[in-house]
Amino acid sequence: MAHRSNGVSALSRAVQVLDTFSPDAPTQTLKEISQRSALPTSTAHRVVGDLVDNGLLERLADRTYRVGNRLWELGSRTPGAVGLREIAMPYIHGVQARVRQHTQLLIRADLDVLVVDRLSARDAIVNASIIGGRHPLQHSSSGIVLLAFAQDDAVERILERGLKPVTASGIQSRSELVEVLARVRHDGFAVSEGYLHPTSRGIAAPVRGAQDVVVGAIGVVVPNNGSDVAEISVLLRHAAQRISDDLLRCYLPPEHPDARPGGSFRQMVRSSEQSMEFLAHHDGFSQAE
Amino acid sequence: MAHRSNGVSALSRAVQVLDTFSPDAPTQTLKEISQRSALPTSTAHRVVGDLVDNGLLERLADRTYRVGNRLWELGSRTPGAVGLREIAMPYIHGVQARVRQHTQLLIRADLDVLVVDRLSARDAIVNASIIGGRHPLQHSSSGIVLLAFAQDDAVERILERGLKPVTASGIQSRSELVEVLARVRHDGFAVSEGYLHPTSRGIAAPVRGAQDVVVGAIGVVVPNNGSDVAEISVLLRHAAQRISDDLLRCYLPPEHPDARPGGSFRQMVRSSEQSMEFLAHHDGFSQAE
Repeated sequence: MAHRSNGVSALSRAVQVLDTFSPDAPTQTLKEISQRSALPTSTAHRVVGDLVDNGLLERLADRTYRVGNRLWELGSRTPGAVGLREIAMPYIHGVQARVRQHTQLLIRADLDVLVVDRLSARDAIVNASIIGGRHPLQHSSSGIVLLAFAQDDAVERILERGLKPVTASGIQSRSELVEVLARVRHDGFAVSEGYLHPTSRGIAAPVRGAQDVVVGAIGVVVPNNGSDVAEISVLLRHAAQRISDDLLRCYLPPEHPDARPGGSFRQMVRSSEQSMEFLAHHDGFSQAE
Repeated sequence: MAHRSNGVSALSRAVQVLDTFSPDAPTQTLKEISQRSALPTSTAHRVVGDLVDNGLLERLADRTYRVGNRLWELGSRTPGAVGLREIAMPYIHGVQARVRQHTQLLIRADLDVLVVDRLSARDAIVNASIIGGRHPLQHSSSGIVLLAFAQDDAVERILERGLKPVTASGIQSRSELVEVLARVRHDGFAVSEGYLHPTSRGIAAPVRGAQDVVVGAIGVVVPNNGSDVAEISVLLRHAAQRISDDLLRCYLPPEHPDARPGGSFRQMVRSSEQSMEFLAHHDGFSQAE
């Protein structure tokens, strides 16, 4: 294949450089990028230059770099993250209005859970979730939900990677993991008590997509105080069901009587009813001139 | 420079392919991608394969493609989009709770305005804003705000590109644009009446960043009914000021007495107070193992 050196494509190296940026290292010097990417300095310099030329990195006045808004723009066209978030958001808000701690939407990224959005009350308990951040699937209730309904060999691969519990309350063994996953499949929700922090408890339910496959999880993080989770689990399962219903209606043909309004925008946008009507008649409107 | 053919880098071609996806075309066939990218078919095929290998595109069961969640993840590390949104969100919610129509956060993307987030009431007026969508700066109140405080030659370049008003109420001439921009700089907010749709009116105020440079705009879209904008403009300017104050505190050295809590996460994350304290002591926590 063209444009490869040592079997690695130019694009792979660009991803390697972009991946050195993280929520706790949003700005880096060229030297830091080079070190964290494990690329030779001259290669790192060239890749950074190419990324800057394409607006995917921005060079600041103090000669540090940060991820460019252009990359965010291109990534905003993901039905699996931004589209799901748009469709789910009214229900996430509905849960948060009741729970008043943390309510969040998560998706699976291979063996990790990826945080798509999070609403947090100012006085809420400790929650390690960061938008765009990851945790190993087995370390949170949302991850456990995604793992319980995984249709691949994720469980085996997680056991190979090692469970590495963060606290003494985390999942310690294969048998414990298998038991927890069976219970989640039976109950339709997961509870994680102190897996990531002793004072916090996660509760999460699966969100099914148009093909009845689990495409995400809606979860809350609340105090780990032993209180009954029945009310919250019903609230979450109800919200998850409504998100699933809306997803289904966004993926029906636009002319179907149950289809949501908004034409070809439905899978990515949830705005007011009048706005959706307007958009439905303006396909191509979103293209900058 | 290596890895270029015809002076175009492999990365540029990848961006060209990704840019064919839009909020109203989130899923495409290989043929559609190839046609919209204006790349030769064989090149488009190769670039798509490379993007799939890196998780930046996903191939679906029906052989169509969509933007991969991995691209969203990499793009979530933008202080200028996601970081700004996290810091601004409580104030966006505060404005929306009062206005109950549309409240949104926007940033500049050269000569366009880019929508970072939007809250919409179900019964709100028509608003063409889509998350990740663009409009020419001169077509909305938020764009006018960003143009009024632009520190480059954006006004001249917009006049070269052509004003192309969407409605008869839009800005029609150089002299009108110059007058509007002068008024915005004097008033500290912009009003656009029916620029994009006759029933809608936009009102927006500038958000200043740590260097006192305008880094975004907070705006509302409300009915174009001629009512007094004084109250809303004060609400927006107050919210913008509070976002600016918080941005400043997120960019102070962590040990400064006025710095916001959260250590190296402050510029990208706004969670509960206990969560920020926790994160401050867990730099590197966000890295997947």
